[in-house]
Amino acid sequence: MRNIDEDTITPAVLAAMAKCGNERLLTVMSSLVRHLHAFARDVRLTEEEWHQAIGFLTDVGHITDDRRQEFVLLSDVLGLSMLVTTQNNRKPAACTEATVLGPFFVNGSPGYENGDDLSNGARGRPCFVSGRVRGLHGEPVADAEIEVWQSDEDGFYDVQYTDADPAHQARGRLHTLPDGRFHFRSILPEAYPIPHDGPVGRMLDALGRHPWRPAHLHFWIKAPGYEPLITHLFRNEDQYLDSDAVFGVRSSLVVDWVEHPAGMAPDGTAMPSAFHTLDYEFVLNPAGQGQ
Amino acid sequence: MRNIDEDTITPAVLAAMAKCGNERLLTVMSSLVRHLHAFARDVRLTEEEWHQAIGFLTDVGHITDDRRQEFVLLSDVLGLSMLVTTQNNRKPAACTEATVLGPFFVNGSPGYENGDDLSNGARGRPCFVSGRVRGLHGEPVADAEIEVWQSDEDGFYDVQYTDADPAHQARGRLHTLPDGRFHFRSILPEAYPIPHDGPVGRMLDALGRHPWRPAHLHFWIKAPGYEPLITHLFRNEDQYLDSDAVFGVRSSLVVDWVEHPAGMAPDGTAMPSAFHTLDYEFVLNPAGQGQ
Ligand SMILES: [Fe+2]
Ligand SMILES: [Fe+2]
Repeated sequence: MRNIDEDTITPAVLAAMAKCGNERLLTVMSSLVRHLHAFARDVRLTEEEWHQAIGFLTDVGHITDDRRQEFVLLSDVLGLSMLVTTQNNRKPAACTEATVLGPFFVNGSPGYENGDDLSNGARGRPCFVSGRVRGLHGEPVADAEIEVWQSDEDGFYDVQYTDADPAHQARGRLHTLPDGRFHFRSILPEAYPIPHDGPVGRMLDALGRHPWRPAHLHFWIKAPGYEPLITHLFRNEDQYLDSDAVFGVRSSLVVDWVEHPAGMAPDGTAMPSAFHTLDYEFVLNPAGQGQ
Repeated sequence: MRNIDEDTITPAVLAAMAKCGNERLLTVMSSLVRHLHAFARDVRLTEEEWHQAIGFLTDVGHITDDRRQEFVLLSDVLGLSMLVTTQNNRKPAACTEATVLGPFFVNGSPGYENGDDLSNGARGRPCFVSGRVRGLHGEPVADAEIEVWQSDEDGFYDVQYTDADPAHQARGRLHTLPDGRFHFRSILPEAYPIPHDGPVGRMLDALGRHPWRPAHLHFWIKAPGYEPLITHLFRNEDQYLDSDAVFGVRSSLVVDWVEHPAGMAPDGTAMPSAFHTLDYEFVLNPAGQGQ
């Protein structure tokens, strides 16, 4: 500690943590220091680059507020979010796969009944979504909470509207019926660029990357006795399925949204203009069975 | 890219950058992604820990402003700053070693003449600092700019004062004389804790680490034809020399500050109370000779 140089710095930092009383924190921070230092050595990070990195992180911090989380966006575009999601959601192959939560989930979205229209003012092509929730052994899961959120026809979520009235559009919660089924109306989600007018957008630009995500509908499904499932369903014709800016695509989540002329929805109600249908079976992992 | 899992995520992120036109940026970011993912895998980072990390970085961003740079502090306490400093300042053994810049440097500090008192209102025990700047081959370096900054008797820098009047205290710039010598009056720097009322302080606490730095005087020396030198001189009796919170100590920078009774300073001026003297020879590396 009295003669720090580029070789002694890493053991010195690790030694300084030796009195940490939290074993897990010690493990995490020791690994972080080793990898952070290995990175700086590998690329022989310059002082100018270090200053740029400090400035970049400062910008990310300053643009972050209650409605915009640029650190989540940064984690997403670096693939860290998807890595953390996948390594914490190992499950039997028959279960529905998880993907990233993303930055547009908000607490307190409105409750709906089966058959309701969740768009609530958001604009887009009409869509009828139905599905079933079951357990790994085929059993229907009644009264599971299904929370959904999605983009509108312009690729925006309600939290991106400058003045959203009503407050919650194209998002909501409903519950499965006794047979595990659910259905609701909404709008067709469209592909969208992640917010790219900030430091993360500038980074993507410098890296020659686009900010687009393929169209998808977010699901968060919760039921007692089962692991919660956070996932999306993607539209199978989307041009960005092979280049999702946040690396969230899994082939099992790419599904057919079928287009229909004006007529009748699967629940027998009228559809006065052309519409899409989506039907999907979600399979939940029993709680405590994670690997 | 259509079937991301915990194994395919890393190559997918690297592949997404393939069109980056900036070769150096590609090198740096590819290495960052590899090390970041390796870290998350090594510790099998949980989703809860990921949320904590996002919250921590958000707090670091929000406390950072024009006067407080918590990201620099974070880099400092993780040893990254010292690693970057040392690996970018390799030089012949005869040259004065570099150490961290730290978060308390500010642009626009006042100019002084040799013999002036730089304390400018900051309180502390009187101190007379003298030295010489020379090149690697012994030649005196005339008209080199010497910028110094330091803590006061309470361990605070002027930028930490709630209302600093005058604005710049215990910091300033002067130039070497034709023989490479310089001298000024100031106060004795004291050990201080880095700002620890924010997220970095809470992290140190959780790690069982203290926030103290051993007493030191910062120098930034610039002269045409030589590499700039950013360094400190430490007081050799300090209790924190073996546990500097930012890992900046190098034994060649730990020096004797000699205590004297009231009397006369080395430049012949009166010292009405007890004072310390410091004398040091700085050796600069010729520009373009870095390894
Ligand atoms: Fe989304
Ligand atoms: Fe300092």
